Amino acid sequence: MQSKGQETYSHILKKSRNLFTVQGFQNTSISQVIAATDVKKGNLYYHFPSKEALGLAVLVDAKEEFFTILEDSLSGDNPMLKILNSCNTILAMMQQTNFVGGCLFGNTALEMAGSNSSFSEVIQEVFSHWTELIEQELLQAAKYDLPLPPISPDALATSVVAILEGGIMLSKVYTTSKSLEDCIFVIRTLLLLQR
Amino acid sequence: MQSKGQETYSHILKKSRNLFTVQGFQNTSISQVIAATDVKKGNLYYHFPSKEALGLAVLVDAKEEFFTILEDSLSGDNPMLKILNSCNTILAMMQQTNFVGGCLFGNTALEMAGSNSSFSEVIQEVFSHWTELIEQELLQAAKYDLPLPPISPDALATSVVAILEGGIMLSKVYTTSKSLEDCIFVIRTLLLLQR
Repeated sequence: MQSKGQETYSHILKKSRNLFTVQGFQNTSISQVIAATDVKKGNLYYHFPSKEALGLAVLVDAKEEFFTILEDSLSGDNPMLKILNSCNTILAMMQQTNFVGGCLFGNTALEMAGSNSSFSEVIQEVFSHWTELIEQELLQAAKYDLPLPPISPDALATSVVAILEGGIMLSKVYTTSKSLEDCIFVIRTLLLLQR
Repeated sequence: MQSKGQETYSHILKKSRNLFTVQGFQNTSISQVIAATDVKKGNLYYHFPSKEALGLAVLVDAKEEFFTILEDSLSGDNPMLKILNSCNTILAMMQQTNFVGGCLFGNTALEMAGSNSSFSEVIQEVFSHWTELIEQELLQAAKYDLPLPPISPDALATSVVAILEGGIMLSKVYTTSKSLEDCIFVIRTLLLLQR
């Protein structure tokens, strides 16, 4: 069971994650965090000594949750279907919020990666682990006699992550899931293509 | 010849574009614009009555320049080579700044698309026109007897833009051009693939 302090800590993380995802980190004030969480200022600072500490904790918490979701979503009868299932899980997650906000990691990458090295480290970890998980599946493809497109597994995995992030960006711009759906169809074609 | 007023106007636009690209719109203050342009506050406000007006003018100016670059870069012996040449032009532009900042439109899309409808309109126009230019090339492919992958030209064009934007994001995160190069290699494979 969570203690009262742990509960408050988690509550602040989840509410702040939502604010940072929708508004961005820079554009979210501590007063907005206080209003959204209904936590007293002293209590907020007890858990997170600075806005930067809060931002970093939100990223780390979101990263851990995302890794669990990713690992669970990589399920299916063969590596290619696992990757496609994972793409569709991400699509479903984004559809739930109608693409408002989009991807916290992508947003933070473009907003903060150049200017905050702690944030940048977490973001690199997210994209590296995500790419590795996909690459591992691609490396398994040979065992299933599945033909790979003539691209190194490393470059293909990087591109799958890039297509998804770009697709989420376009879906956010047009507020329609069609862009991301088109992107996943292209991933499907790339992965299931016969040479 | 440009008048002194026009020169100042253009000077403010170019310097502000750099600030907005590297730091983001929200995170750039009017004082920073004044410091970077060396223009007096009154003169700045004479040309741009608000920070939002400046932000919008920067986006429109960058959009027009980008459309010219795009149209020039779509050159080559056939539609597929034209698209690849255009991708490589974008890669070269990004390499010039070593991916510091990345893509102004992508950054602004993730930072502001949900919260500012004027910015959002320009960003939509950028991505729509870019996608259309690529789609037009794909539609020409049949005339050259070039086989297309089994994807609608519309979805494929959307995905080319998404892969490039995602690739720029990853290259910015890792400060290396390898991610975007990998992505362009995947576009090449998609476009030049024989069915």
